Amino acid sequence: MAETMRGAVWYGKNDVRIENLPLPSAPKPGWVQIKVAYCGICGSDLHEFIAGPVFIPTTPHPLTGTKAPLLLGHEFSGTVCAVGEGVTTVKVGDRVAPDACQHCHICKPCRDGRYNVCDKLAFTGLMTEGAFAPYVNVPAELCYKIPDNMSFEHAALLEPLATGFSAVRKAGSIMGLNVVVLGAGTIGLGTIMAVRASGAGQIIVLEQAAARIEMAKKCGADVIINTKEKDAVEEVRKLTDGVGADVSFECIGNIHTGPLAIDVLRNTGTAVIEGIFEGPSAFNFFTLSGTDKTVIGSLAYTLKDFEGLGKLIAKGVIDPSPLITGKIALGDIVEKGFLELINNKDNNIKIIVDPNK
Amino acid sequence: MAETMRGAVWYGKNDVRIENLPLPSAPKPGWVQIKVAYCGICGSDLHEFIAGPVFIPTTPHPLTGTKAPLLLGHEFSGTVCAVGEGVTTVKVGDRVAPDACQHCHICKPCRDGRYNVCDKLAFTGLMTEGAFAPYVNVPAELCYKIPDNMSFEHAALLEPLATGFSAVRKAGSIMGLNVVVLGAGTIGLGTIMAVRASGAGQIIVLEQAAARIEMAKKCGADVIINTKEKDAVEEVRKLTDGVGADVSFECIGNIHTGPLAIDVLRNTGTAVIEGIFEGPSAFNFFTLSGTDKTVIGSLAYTLKDFEGLGKLIAKGVIDPSPLITGKIALGDIVEKGFLELINNKDNNIKIIVDPNK
Repeated sequence: MAETMRGAVWYGKNDVRIENLPLPSAPKPGWVQIKVAYCGICGSDLHEFIAGPVFIPTTPHPLTGTKAPLLLGHEFSGTVCAVGEGVTTVKVGDRVAPDACQHCHICKPCRDGRYNVCDKLAFTGLMTEGAFAPYVNVPAELCYKIPDNMSFEHAALLEPLATGFSAVRKAGSIMGLNVVVLGAGTIGLGTIMAVRASGAGQIIVLEQAAARIEMAKKCGADVIINTKEKDAVEEVRKLTDGVGADVSFECIGNIHTGPLAIDVLRNTGTAVIEGIFEGPSAFNFFTLSGTDKTVIGSLAYTLKDFEGLGKLIAKGVIDPSPLITGKIALGDIVEKGFLELINNKDNNIKIIVDPNK
Repeated sequence: MAETMRGAVWYGKNDVRIENLPLPSAPKPGWVQIKVAYCGICGSDLHEFIAGPVFIPTTPHPLTGTKAPLLLGHEFSGTVCAVGEGVTTVKVGDRVAPDACQHCHICKPCRDGRYNVCDKLAFTGLMTEGAFAPYVNVPAELCYKIPDNMSFEHAALLEPLATGFSAVRKAGSIMGLNVVVLGAGTIGLGTIMAVRASGAGQIIVLEQAAARIEMAKKCGADVIINTKEKDAVEEVRKLTDGVGADVSFECIGNIHTGPLAIDVLRNTGTAVIEGIFEGPSAFNFFTLSGTDKTVIGSLAYTLKDFEGLGKLIAKGVIDPSPLITGKIALGDIVEKGFLELINNKDNNIKIIVDPNK
């Protein structure tokens, strides 16, 4: 009789089940099998739980052939426990944190090195089987080997922090500049840390929740504007000699905060958009053509962001510790994970799951 | 008794009057007086005629103190006939085409060399007295000295063509790339010519009017998609191996063409927005954050665009001739200018006015 493992499987909205599943088969050529140490719960997992399917395919995914029901989980760390034919970049025993952007290698973005926006992008744990389970198979090329001094807990944070890291890189040098970060959830906090690491002159954060405001300060915010109480555009102007910010990062994904990220800028400023938006904003394009402002979209990351971020975490420039607000066993993922994050949103940032417990 | 001159003065919507006016006073320090040779009618002049005031101030403009009624006209060429104190860059007798972006010199965009988006930008002939008159005063620093072999007719086209020229520069190198230009009015045609001059690989133009389609071909379009008949996104994909364009230039300013400029792009592509939009579009910002696309706003130009464009016109790489579809006397500006452009829109591109007739 085949061995089994327990995993958190998405069946539908409000229907994530802990199930006994067969172990993954031996990794195919170019792939590896990972014994998962920790896997964090992402906002997009919550999104699938509350309102899915959002990204989860209900017909076979064009790259992976996977469809629901499927194992969730993409923010993870672990140890390589088996390698497929032809794998040379990692070996059994390597401690890794995999990039979740499975891709086709042949579309134009892939060939340009921008595989994070592959035409057939298959996010691990959303569009193909994930890591809320003791074992998962992934392409070897996506495995970032973590530094020896990095804990598995921190390594599980590489994936969510890499999104902000990549967004800040896309803005070019922000050294000495006035920067606004909209939102201090996980992506916003990761962005704040990357903005601080990039030498920004003044880091202004827009946030409403008290607990997140405190967290933003810990992560590097110089000034917080509570947008429940004050007008963001006016306050940003006051903080920038009446001018407006040089650069902004949108990390909320609300229909009002897309345009707001542009409105807080000075003429010729740059907004980087990281949020996942559910619907259209009312947006006057003259906001751009009348101001020489630039807007850059930024989805996820590539492996080089893991590599850069890993170095900064290893030498203590970026510290993911404060973001971990819970550590739970797999069996508790719905009650102490999803529901806790939904019902106690402001006091939680990242809950990580130990799939072996 | 003071000498007078005739000029086209905007009083209100549908109310542009040919009036006798005092000659401008002697130019103040740093300014020059220009004897106008030709001044073209711009889409924004028409806009003010049909639906103004749009940009025309009805209270004193913060930079110039000017308010309606005012002399229209900002696309012009002529000869310096008087210089104010301290002017060293031009002298009496110089043939010039002035940049219309009067600016404050002290705001952040000005100090960054981006005076086209000066916080107090005062466009000649819209926010301060213009050149639909035999004489006009402007800051000396805005005067581009035209090459000896350039006619005053061509020189009057520098201003409208500089907008597309600047937009194409902002996109970075587009050499060999698939480029879409939305719209083939004056700004679109100027953009097409600049795109061709930049070595684009394939120039795809979206347009509906038959006369403009012909004009787009003359100016360098490789393929025209008539968006009355065909779906732009689908057709652009067909022309780009199923991928989408690398770069697009929006030159229409319609609420649907703002988002369309982004939808015709491949992932990681860049849209440059030149249009003047009257209202908000429905725009989902995930169109950017899910694709790594970039959007760059581009307003007008600076003097260096006149300088670059002037060189290309002087050596015949860009030829403004086909754009001039009419040459009229000042007294005919309403009947044979504004009304002709409104009623016979598709068959006209640029009508230039001789203010001395």
